[in-house]
Amino acid sequence: MAFTNTRKVRIEWGDCDPAGIVFYPRYFAIFDSSTTALFERALGMTKYQFLKKYESAGYPMVDTRARFLLPTRFGDDVLVETTISEIKRSSFQVTHRLMKDGQLAVEGFETRVWTGRDPSDPDKIRSKPLPEEMLAKLTAG
Amino acid sequence: MAFTNTRKVRIEWGDCDPAGIVFYPRYFAIFDSSTTALFERALGMTKYQFLKKYESAGYPMVDTRARFLLPTRFGDDVLVETTISEIKRSSFQVTHRLMKDGQLAVEGFETRVWTGRDPSDPDKIRSKPLPEEMLAKLTAG
Amino acid sequence: MAFTNTRKVRIEWGDCDPAGIVFYPRYFAIFDSSTTALFERALGMTKYQFLKKYESAGYPMVDTRARFLLPTRFGDDVLVETTISEIKRSSFQVTHRLMKDGQLAVEGFETRVWTGRDPSDPDKIRSKPLPEEMLAKLTAG
Amino acid sequence: MAFTNTRKVRIEWGDCDPAGIVFYPRYFAIFDSSTTALFERALGMTKYQFLKKYESAGYPMVDTRARFLLPTRFGDDVLVETTISEIKRSSFQVTHRLMKDGQLAVEGFETRVWTGRDPSDPDKIRSKPLPEEMLAKLTAG
Repeated sequence: MAFTNTRKVRIEWGDCDPAGIVFYPRYFAIFDSSTTALFERALGMTKYQFLKKYESAGYPMVDTRARFLLPTRFGDDVLVETTISEIKRSSFQVTHRLMKDGQLAVEGFETRVWTGRDPSDPDKIRSKPLPEEMLAKLTAG
Repeated sequence: MAFTNTRKVRIEWGDCDPAGIVFYPRYFAIFDSSTTALFERALGMTKYQFLKKYESAGYPMVDTRARFLLPTRFGDDVLVETTISEIKRSSFQVTHRLMKDGQLAVEGFETRVWTGRDPSDPDKIRSKPLPEEMLAKLTAG
Repeated sequence: MAFTNTRKVRIEWGDCDPAGIVFYPRYFAIFDSSTTALFERALGMTKYQFLKKYESAGYPMVDTRARFLLPTRFGDDVLVETTISEIKRSSFQVTHRLMKDGQLAVEGFETRVWTGRDPSDPDKIRSKPLPEEMLAKLTAG
Repeated sequence: MAFTNTRKVRIEWGDCDPAGIVFYPRYFAIFDSSTTALFERALGMTKYQFLKKYESAGYPMVDTRARFLLPTRFGDDVLVETTISEIKRSSFQVTHRLMKDGQLAVEGFETRVWTGRDPSDPDKIRSKPLPEEMLAKLTAG
């Protein structure tokens, strides 16, 4: 089963561009925080804590796509529904549905990889398998 | 023929996250500026000027995707090659290839729509046909 | 009496830089949203609504300063206490105290000006007096 | 003598807010990159390289102030003149003058501290003296 989390996000003045609507790169920052919120809820720890516990350098993006159906603007309160749609050995897929007044405004898709520091060169990061313990919690939802 | 523009971008400290690599939403901001740079070069005006001239509210994103192949970090100088790959009546597609040391690091795809203020409600924006004059210049490259 | 508002802010991964702590320009974005939150609470409307109602182009910054006493990092939940410390005819001052675990982490000071579109050139904005009705509500807290 | 550097910055669409002018936190990001540009020019290395060479965790902000005299908007090319105005044992002051069409538009002041990882807890950073070699180069300009 897929783990899901929903959070409310306020669209801020500083998220918007001269057209008065969200500058779209900000949606990706909102989605990034939404993926984090899902992990934090599944694991019962902050990202700072679980990266430390599992000796991880994070889960950088491999491939992402978003479709923009309705504009949002400052003052809007939107809901972001986030689901881990697939988990593989060292990568996973996340889907975000950003809802405004009950309507789908933006849809996001992510493929991310779980990483750690490269033992032979700590300046580099490389993929590694997701810890079993995490897998269990992320698929328990 | 497709109009193409290449520009150099410096990856900054503030573009990077605690893993030391670019926080990926920043790539979309870089791509947005790259699309603007292409239009500005094709039209010989700044975005401020051509939005005014053609009574446009901009070209918001409809659908975008990016693939991340190699990490970049602060201090890297990258090249962004931007091409208008397709133009329709009121929408167009753009491709970005972000190169680091001659290798493809990030690839971006955009579908955008040309817009103006809605005459019946200036708070809203809606799509409208790309001006003939612009089309001529964007396909002349 | 000065109107005050307190809100909780989560420090996100994307707010932090390669040193692992907040990239300081992000604090200014947090403060900007905090000033908005105070106005929205005092006026009982969103910023979108009160800018429209009072025909305002916003309250751009004239002068701001911040002191950084303690670092914060992703996963930290901080409290931002915001106060309008002084209101003049068309400008006002705001103070922010960002608290982490009960300790002052960042202190911010703002002088902003209330503006509208210039009637003779709508591309320009210029200061104008704060509406009486707003003044009453902002000093009632 | 004070080391000085000037660089050209293009104000982008995504730097601007619904009022059509720069969202002021973006000026601080511009100033941060300008301080980096000055260091890079003085030391003949990228920030990535000199942080590594001098085992530094960067130069976080202690206190900053900015005054906003003229608005800038997307399409504007501005010049940022950056000067190290004072260097102490482990801290230094930087001044930025952002010029638009030859006029001072924004003025920024920074007090920063040179830091390294805390040997007793690598998760923490703490101030340390600026390397002699750096001092020589930063005061040579």
